[in-house]
Amino acid sequence: MRFLLTKRVFKIFPPRCQRLWLTYTSFSSTSHSGGFSGDSEPESWRTMEGLLRTPANFAPLSPVTFLERSAKVYRDRTSLVFGSVYHTWFQTYQRCLCLASALTSLGTSTGDVVATLAPNVPAMYELHFAVPMAGLILCPLNTRLDPSTLSVLLAHSEAKILFVDQQLLELAHGALDLLVKSDRTRKSPKLVLISQSNGDDSENDDSSSKFASQYSFDYEYETLLQSGNSEFEVIKPRSEWDPISINYTSGTTSSPKGVVYSHRGAYLNTLATVFLHQMPVYPVYLWTVPMFHGNGWCLIWGVAAQGGTNICLKKVTPKLIFKNISMHQITNMGGAPTVLNMIVKCPVTEQKRLPHRVEIMTGGSPPQPQILAKMEELGFNVSHMYGLTETHGPGTYCLWKPEWDSLSLEERCKLKARQGVQHLGLEGLEVKDPVTMETVPDDGLTMGEVMFKGNTVMSGYYKDLEATRKAFEGDWFHSGDLAVKHPDGYIEVKDRLKDVIISGGENISSVEVERVLSSHQAVFEAAVVARPDNHWGETPCGFVKLKDGIDGIKPEEIIRFCRDRLPHYMAPKTIVFGDIPKTSTGKVQKHILRKRAEELGSL
Amino acid sequence: MRFLLTKRVFKIFPPRCQRLWLTYTSFSSTSHSGGFSGDSEPESWRTMEGLLRTPANFAPLSPVTFLERSAKVYRDRTSLVFGSVYHTWFQTYQRCLCLASALTSLGTSTGDVVATLAPNVPAMYELHFAVPMAGLILCPLNTRLDPSTLSVLLAHSEAKILFVDQQLLELAHGALDLLVKSDRTRKSPKLVLISQSNGDDSENDDSSSKFASQYSFDYEYETLLQSGNSEFEVIKPRSEWDPISINYTSGTTSSPKGVVYSHRGAYLNTLATVFLHQMPVYPVYLWTVPMFHGNGWCLIWGVAAQGGTNICLKKVTPKLIFKNISMHQITNMGGAPTVLNMIVKCPVTEQKRLPHRVEIMTGGSPPQPQILAKMEELGFNVSHMYGLTETHGPGTYCLWKPEWDSLSLEERCKLKARQGVQHLGLEGLEVKDPVTMETVPDDGLTMGEVMFKGNTVMSGYYKDLEATRKAFEGDWFHSGDLAVKHPDGYIEVKDRLKDVIISGGENISSVEVERVLSSHQAVFEAAVVARPDNHWGETPCGFVKLKDGIDGIKPEEIIRFCRDRLPHYMAPKTIVFGDIPKTSTGKVQKHILRKRAEELGSL
Repeated sequence: MRFLLTKRVFKIFPPRCQRLWLTYTSFSSTSHSGGFSGDSEPESWRTMEGLLRTPANFAPLSPVTFLERSAKVYRDRTSLVFGSVYHTWFQTYQRCLCLASALTSLGTSTGDVVATLAPNVPAMYELHFAVPMAGLILCPLNTRLDPSTLSVLLAHSEAKILFVDQQLLELAHGALDLLVKSDRTRKSPKLVLISQSNGDDSENDDSSSKFASQYSFDYEYETLLQSGNSEFEVIKPRSEWDPISINYTSGTTSSPKGVVYSHRGAYLNTLATVFLHQMPVYPVYLWTVPMFHGNGWCLIWGVAAQGGTNICLKKVTPKLIFKNISMHQITNMGGAPTVLNMIVKCPVTEQKRLPHRVEIMTGGSPPQPQILAKMEELGFNVSHMYGLTETHGPGTYCLWKPEWDSLSLEERCKLKARQGVQHLGLEGLEVKDPVTMETVPDDGLTMGEVMFKGNTVMSGYYKDLEATRKAFEGDWFHSGDLAVKHPDGYIEVKDRLKDVIISGGENISSVEVERVLSSHQAVFEAAVVARPDNHWGETPCGFVKLKDGIDGIKPEEIIRFCRDRLPHYMAPKTIVFGDIPKTSTGKVQKHILRKRAEELGSL
Repeated sequence: MRFLLTKRVFKIFPPRCQRLWLTYTSFSSTSHSGGFSGDSEPESWRTMEGLLRTPANFAPLSPVTFLERSAKVYRDRTSLVFGSVYHTWFQTYQRCLCLASALTSLGTSTGDVVATLAPNVPAMYELHFAVPMAGLILCPLNTRLDPSTLSVLLAHSEAKILFVDQQLLELAHGALDLLVKSDRTRKSPKLVLISQSNGDDSENDDSSSKFASQYSFDYEYETLLQSGNSEFEVIKPRSEWDPISINYTSGTTSSPKGVVYSHRGAYLNTLATVFLHQMPVYPVYLWTVPMFHGNGWCLIWGVAAQGGTNICLKKVTPKLIFKNISMHQITNMGGAPTVLNMIVKCPVTEQKRLPHRVEIMTGGSPPQPQILAKMEELGFNVSHMYGLTETHGPGTYCLWKPEWDSLSLEERCKLKARQGVQHLGLEGLEVKDPVTMETVPDDGLTMGEVMFKGNTVMSGYYKDLEATRKAFEGDWFHSGDLAVKHPDGYIEVKDRLKDVIISGGENISSVEVERVLSSHQAVFEAAVVARPDNHWGETPCGFVKLKDGIDGIKPEEIIRFCRDRLPHYMAPKTIVFGDIPKTSTGKVQKHILRKRAEELGSL
């Protein structure tokens, strides 16, 4: 397999333009996997006369243009609400221009990395535009990481500036101390304190401002922003392939990797995500998905594209969710199944039937049918999408078919729990044997690895060419998730490749066992991993968190419950009661549970 | 001003991928009009390690991918209906593969042009995908042109194949005879007869099949298609800048020009247009807009993107429109104001109140408020967009604001008649002085030329670099339309640059005079051009078509009507009764009227 960079002859024209047919560089391969058509230029290809590429008909694709347009088209509409703070799209744009201008005045150079450590405050929203507008690259860090991991990420990303919310200032200092200790020659990033509070809403606020006085910082966000110039000329990407964001994966399975998004990828995935959400114009979006998670599933840019209103929340609690839905007429929101779980299982005093239908997009792990059912009862319309940080978040969705409306609740929930079909931005989605790269039959039974292809797949892992190469082996992105493909073409994820339990030669999907465990009336949530077994190799081991107030239930009772509902080899042989460790985005940390199961010893 | 093609060093990697930071070619200019950021690479720009560009994360943008995806995602849903013919998305894809394969077997080479001369039959829909899938360029010709113009376009486009509907076979032969006469060495394009009939619907059919037997042709569409192979491997564009379509402008003002669209431009405008239509998933689209007009305003590709159903119509009559709306539960349709006019003014026996709300998008010329009002009464929701062939059709739209709902019908119509704001695919829309390139104040009064900028502007005029350069002067696309910008940022087109009447030094918008003329109860439609005047230079001359059955009205009465409603200098001094010459897309041919006005002599 060979790659060629074929460059056509070119000429310089005196006026501000270049002949199109003389300029483009195409890149081709002999790969017959599609995408590129041939090894060399077909002789018959005729150049086309009369065409030009100029700023009149070309601009690098970038999600920043959504804000630039919104400032004009949606000018006086509310862009963002945070407690008593209300901004219009014109104001948001002006503020981002000021912030971008201030960033360049801090001595940054094009391509420098700016990290953030903050919940869903307005600054997080603004930084997603202002940082690329200053020619810089955003690195939104997960706020629930420990100082040691954070120091590794700060070192790896070489961040020049770190924006920190006041309630995380202690954490940031912990990380910076470790960073300096690990390498005395390293210059610590400049620290900008975000002290935005949502003013009148004490519930949504926290009393962490006291921390701010104990720790040093270099600048304060609002002061820095106000020092900037709203006449700032936006630094456009030189190419739409320029990086816009580095997102470190939550690291459920391995050490964190820096997933790089380009301006082009972010632009295209934003549009695909708005389509996937069927988000109308003027949405009112409640920020329950962390903005640091895949840039808020690309909807930070998406809400700008549709002229919507962003309702920012520092904390996500059922009470605040219900309150904000009523107060702001929320149309759309999102959340991992943990958020759905929290809504469904919160005390009835907090739970309210919604005053209007709210579209909620879930993703991150397959939602449990009984949770979907309860959400519908409350007045939510749950949609289900699936993707990875490496696919800019959403990559597939369970596209609903009108004919399913007439099915029973159980059947509907079963269909909705599937991960579905590729969104508009992808070229390909397949379930393949990762060794032979053969596509599995669409029989709903044969398992294979989910693979993606297209412009909305990441540019690669920062500073890890080997990992990038491995992820793109065979010209497909390997997700590491196991799925089947149903006869209607919808995929259903069965497990992480690493989470499958192999017992007596049989593959057991931990997800299916978890589904049964969760349907037990005493169970709040459950996770299943492999426990070593001298006879079977591995057997399922269930970690179970019981509902509040439940007492006296025995592991045997839970095991019997599973045996009644699953083939015997799939039922857990071990049940451990307790809390389930999770990442900030609600993913169960199975590597921790696997370790615990190992420590239990072989059965 | 200078242009540089800066190519970075590159290396060949053994596995199927190339380092991203080593491969991209960026193209920069010293122009400070935006889009390109600098003359040379900033020293501080750091290459990013670890990134790759492979088919896993890159594919040239092309609207063909919408069909490829729909064949999987919307597989068994109805893609197209034509009389008793129903296709699913899977079938449409299979048919396009066959057709593409058959096209390559006719001896075409990548980049060859395939012309069409047909109304909105299924073949037209299929050719929009099959032609680019075969690596060829589509050239949809206007079916209402004369043989002489058609022969010029066939010569100019160098079309290798011409697909002709049976009812246009005589016209095609007329054009081909002239083509051969004009240049005896020229090889005539191969002729493919489209004999698709919509079967059971006699009203929508025509008895033109008799023509087919009188004229020769090389292939028959369905036979040719069936000879193809559905296993055909799609020929992907080598670059997303490759041309996909040449659309000759309707030529209201000058000799036709071949507007070239790239795969990239078509992809991006399709998405922007779907957003602009606020078209939901599964739309049912009635084809009242000619598919040869800007590729059906890009919705040929757009309906595929949203998994909709295309209802094809050979003829557009009010009776058929109302019939199809009921029969197929049409959700969306489009039409020039002529189509709206036809609906509103058709006999009451044909007019029906709609069984459900239908979204209709209009464009082409500013709609008259009284027509908008009547359409609303019937149950249509009219949206208004504006653009040119050079902007892939839609470029702006009158984005509706919820707060306008409570206004009076008159006020709502007045607001809706404005051309509005730029769609999502554009970088810029301004009203500028074409000489100084200064943006006019947003006072709703100062006129300037509408200018566009962005990826959805054409690649240029085929074989006319001078015209392309002129159109892109100052890094903006010059529309030739005069408009004002209102304080809310919405633009309102006042006239074509060429149609403005200059009377005693005052600019008179012919559109405003036409609006008053059309509001006269006896007037069916009206057009206004300049007539030479010895004293004033020019004065307005109105051409008026009266409603059926109206008789005995005098020009003086019409003039008086205008004088009561306009400043005196704006009222026509001349009124001529008769038919108004129009292009196939419903645009008034003002150059013909101007000639007639000149022939009247100076006043």
